[in-house]
Amino acid sequence: MDEGHPKEQPAEHRTRSWWGWGWCEEALPDAECAALGALLPGLPADPLPVPRVADLDLPVPAVTVPAPLAPLVTADPADRAAHALGKAYRDVVRALHRTPARVPDLVARPRSEQDVADLLDWAGRTGTAVIPYGGGSSVVGGVEYRGEAHPAVLSLDLTRMDQVLEVDRVSRAARVQGGVLGPHLERQLRPHGLTLRHFPQSFEFSTLGGWLATRAGGHYATLHTHVDDFTESLRVVTPIGVNSSWRLPGSGAGPSPDRLFLGSEGTLGVITEAWMRLQDRPVHKASAAVLFPSFEAAAEAVRVLAQSGLHPANCRLLDRGEAAFSGAAADGSTVLVLGFESAHTPVGGSLAAAVSLARDHGGRPAPEPAGARGAVDSWRAAFLRMPYQRDALARMSGIVETFETACTWDRLPALYEAVRAETAAAVKEVTGAEGLVNCRLTHVYPDGAAPYFTVIAAGRRGAELRMWDEVKAAAMEVLGRHRATVTHHHAVGRDHRPGYDRQRPEPFARALGAVKSALDPQGVLNPGVLLG
Amino acid sequence: MDEGHPKEQPAEHRTRSWWGWGWCEEALPDAECAALGALLPGLPADPLPVPRVADLDLPVPAVTVPAPLAPLVTADPADRAAHALGKAYRDVVRALHRTPARVPDLVARPRSEQDVADLLDWAGRTGTAVIPYGGGSSVVGGVEYRGEAHPAVLSLDLTRMDQVLEVDRVSRAARVQGGVLGPHLERQLRPHGLTLRHFPQSFEFSTLGGWLATRAGGHYATLHTHVDDFTESLRVVTPIGVNSSWRLPGSGAGPSPDRLFLGSEGTLGVITEAWMRLQDRPVHKASAAVLFPSFEAAAEAVRVLAQSGLHPANCRLLDRGEAAFSGAAADGSTVLVLGFESAHTPVGGSLAAAVSLARDHGGRPAPEPAGARGAVDSWRAAFLRMPYQRDALARMSGIVETFETACTWDRLPALYEAVRAETAAAVKEVTGAEGLVNCRLTHVYPDGAAPYFTVIAAGRRGAELRMWDEVKAAAMEVLGRHRATVTHHHAVGRDHRPGYDRQRPEPFARALGAVKSALDPQGVLNPGVLLG
Repeated sequence: MDEGHPKEQPAEHRTRSWWGWGWCEEALPDAECAALGALLPGLPADPLPVPRVADLDLPVPAVTVPAPLAPLVTADPADRAAHALGKAYRDVVRALHRTPARVPDLVARPRSEQDVADLLDWAGRTGTAVIPYGGGSSVVGGVEYRGEAHPAVLSLDLTRMDQVLEVDRVSRAARVQGGVLGPHLERQLRPHGLTLRHFPQSFEFSTLGGWLATRAGGHYATLHTHVDDFTESLRVVTPIGVNSSWRLPGSGAGPSPDRLFLGSEGTLGVITEAWMRLQDRPVHKASAAVLFPSFEAAAEAVRVLAQSGLHPANCRLLDRGEAAFSGAAADGSTVLVLGFESAHTPVGGSLAAAVSLARDHGGRPAPEPAGARGAVDSWRAAFLRMPYQRDALARMSGIVETFETACTWDRLPALYEAVRAETAAAVKEVTGAEGLVNCRLTHVYPDGAAPYFTVIAAGRRGAELRMWDEVKAAAMEVLGRHRATVTHHHAVGRDHRPGYDRQRPEPFARALGAVKSALDPQGVLNPGVLLG
Repeated sequence: MDEGHPKEQPAEHRTRSWWGWGWCEEALPDAECAALGALLPGLPADPLPVPRVADLDLPVPAVTVPAPLAPLVTADPADRAAHALGKAYRDVVRALHRTPARVPDLVARPRSEQDVADLLDWAGRTGTAVIPYGGGSSVVGGVEYRGEAHPAVLSLDLTRMDQVLEVDRVSRAARVQGGVLGPHLERQLRPHGLTLRHFPQSFEFSTLGGWLATRAGGHYATLHTHVDDFTESLRVVTPIGVNSSWRLPGSGAGPSPDRLFLGSEGTLGVITEAWMRLQDRPVHKASAAVLFPSFEAAAEAVRVLAQSGLHPANCRLLDRGEAAFSGAAADGSTVLVLGFESAHTPVGGSLAAAVSLARDHGGRPAPEPAGARGAVDSWRAAFLRMPYQRDALARMSGIVETFETACTWDRLPALYEAVRAETAAAVKEVTGAEGLVNCRLTHVYPDGAAPYFTVIAAGRRGAELRMWDEVKAAAMEVLGRHRATVTHHHAVGRDHRPGYDRQRPEPFARALGAVKSALDPQGVLNPGVLLG
């Protein structure tokens, strides 16, 4: 969902939730769900029960694989259910109501590139739809099958391919398999003193291959915001062969081959390996929080900061609603959370320069330590807890949506106002009551910013999905009208198709369709995502 | 050819050379050519005469345009001759021997996007090959027609579309027409206090559209090395319609549409406009030169510097041959030329940190001012003079080639040695005498570097092209064997096709072919470049 700074805990003693975010053990108990729900007037008193796989009426798999592939494949109901959906609000609600989308017939866990190629070959021969699956954290309908055109559906779970295969310490790069989850990747890099420092909110539950396929946004608020920039080369298994680019620090030889696969969301091939650019582990860190009287003044400060060349690692601007909601500021302030880090040189001077610049624009440093550290820590804790609270609210039939975008600075004030006003109006119209529409800037650039919106409203049990769909459609419409991207780092998937189709230049759509036909002639890879 | 730091002089009183680099007035007189040639044993005593258009035997144009297009088009012999070739060594030699490639039948100078679309429509109907032409500074055969498949050839000169159309001061961006030459672009931005700061060696003689189409390398030695990174959005006229991307500071919505056209070298469409990210004009600058006893030690220092996060704007490492040749150091030293710049904060501290780091790796700061400034200024003057000297040597039948590449740090020492040894051996074998093979690093990255090689040898009059081709083929073969890119910022054109075809992943080649067929169904755009 968003960039963060999570712990790298070993995960052995916990169980992944098949229907909701993350770990079963971290989900809010019923009483806490009810307490949270009580904050939103009009919700039922009791949470929907936690859904059980056994209650699903799973159809018999429509297909079997030939014997050589059998060891890679399972039809286990729990596996099939867990691979049926991503982790968007609509996914959670569908699971809660025991109405998941088409459940995959089979789940495959290849152990090698050859396994992947063999599975794609078989899928092409049989017309089986293949849904590449990393950690399954998509919030845009990226890992489910919708439609009728394919006789069977295979979820291709890459998480057995989870090794760092090679480390080039001199060039600070590593060859890594696509199926590695965030914490396991960092554990393997740590003995080399290296880190990818790519920490999306989904870090524990998403994979390198997933990040690459969706152009994930990571740790850095400025400069190198997307995982794209850390990609030195890719290996991609396409239905017509392996696409392997050379390891190059830079090149001008034709359009970048890697940039075609970055963001291809599993529609053109399966990313099995990448050489990734790494960082030395930072030893110098400094952070601060600055309070502003208004979002407008704060955004202006952030713009100047983004154009200053100071390159903060963290530069997150919380509007007053977001700051209040996350506990970063209770006094109605807008809060700027700043962080600098370096493996080489002290960063205190850069932080002081940034704070001074913020002060010039009406900012007031939060008092130490309860203030700065307090705001930073409160926000971070809330950030990592948020998806679990989202699930708790979903169980109470609350409506929760997060969406993000980016636009240039000249259009930011109008976009901010329009999204808040029109989304709030849609919430009112759809639910009959006021909701919360909060905003933060997660990434900033010299020429613009990426606002991230959170919508919370009271839904009506049984009508949650329709309500969510209508609010989301209204929000997507505002973004499109303002020519703000339909997604800065959540990807397109199936849910963002209307906005994406509007935004994508028509000749490029034709070009992408031609690429799809060339690389995936049977049309089996993630049908309905981006194209078709 | 390479990044630099040129003057923005008004150009009104000078005449562009139709056959050689830049301005006629800057070309070396015969006596200086002869003096230069005398440095290479075995060359003839007299230069080849400056070629005249009148001596060319131009065929009658094979095609005419319909009346509405007539005002856009000329068949003037001087125009046709000037658009027949780029500015590679082989282009100059062919002009000197009055054997240019197929001269275009017509030269068109559209004034608007609609003109471009109309011309492409006509070309598609008549099967006329269209060669998009900016400043014509290609050194890779990017602007000439080779082949027989098209009945006629049109050179599409974009330089009438040379305006900055809109400036967004808040977002520091401008909407600029593709045909603007470097100095005219900077002159239009200057009143706004803004600059693109993209200064290829060809700055005076190349256009924004050309930079974008070829992924040109610019001013910055680190961080944002290619013009790609400064591109906010593009307008591209393709034969099937206009491709217009939204202005976005960042996006994760599918594969980047702009990245498909960046590097497309005129094969997929004509870049008529771009929103470019700009910089505030720097007011703080500091530079220094550091001398090293060996290339190996210096490269190690540069690697650590590139990984330090200091981000020098200039970080050019000249090996002993290059340093001697350019006058940066006469004592056999390897020279590192460092420069920092900022619009916002003093850069003395960064320069001191970089010099200190270089010292830790055996570097010795050049004495001030004759040393540091001297080495920097000497190198810069030589850098801008170099293409004129190249032409002078060509007139003496010397052989001059420059080529550049990039590879990761782990492979740099082996690549450096292999390229120098094998290219020198090829020179010896082809010409029978020793030649110079010098190297500099022009751009550096955390994970690698971009070496730029210069080859100078004595050719034999009449056999220059064959000799050059053989030396170039040998060099390209070494690069490919070491999996170093065939070009870091010179582009592919027609001359680098063998290396490019070797480097390009096969599925991507198929994808690009499919894109070509979708966007340019008649196959009229820059045939033979990248594809076909």
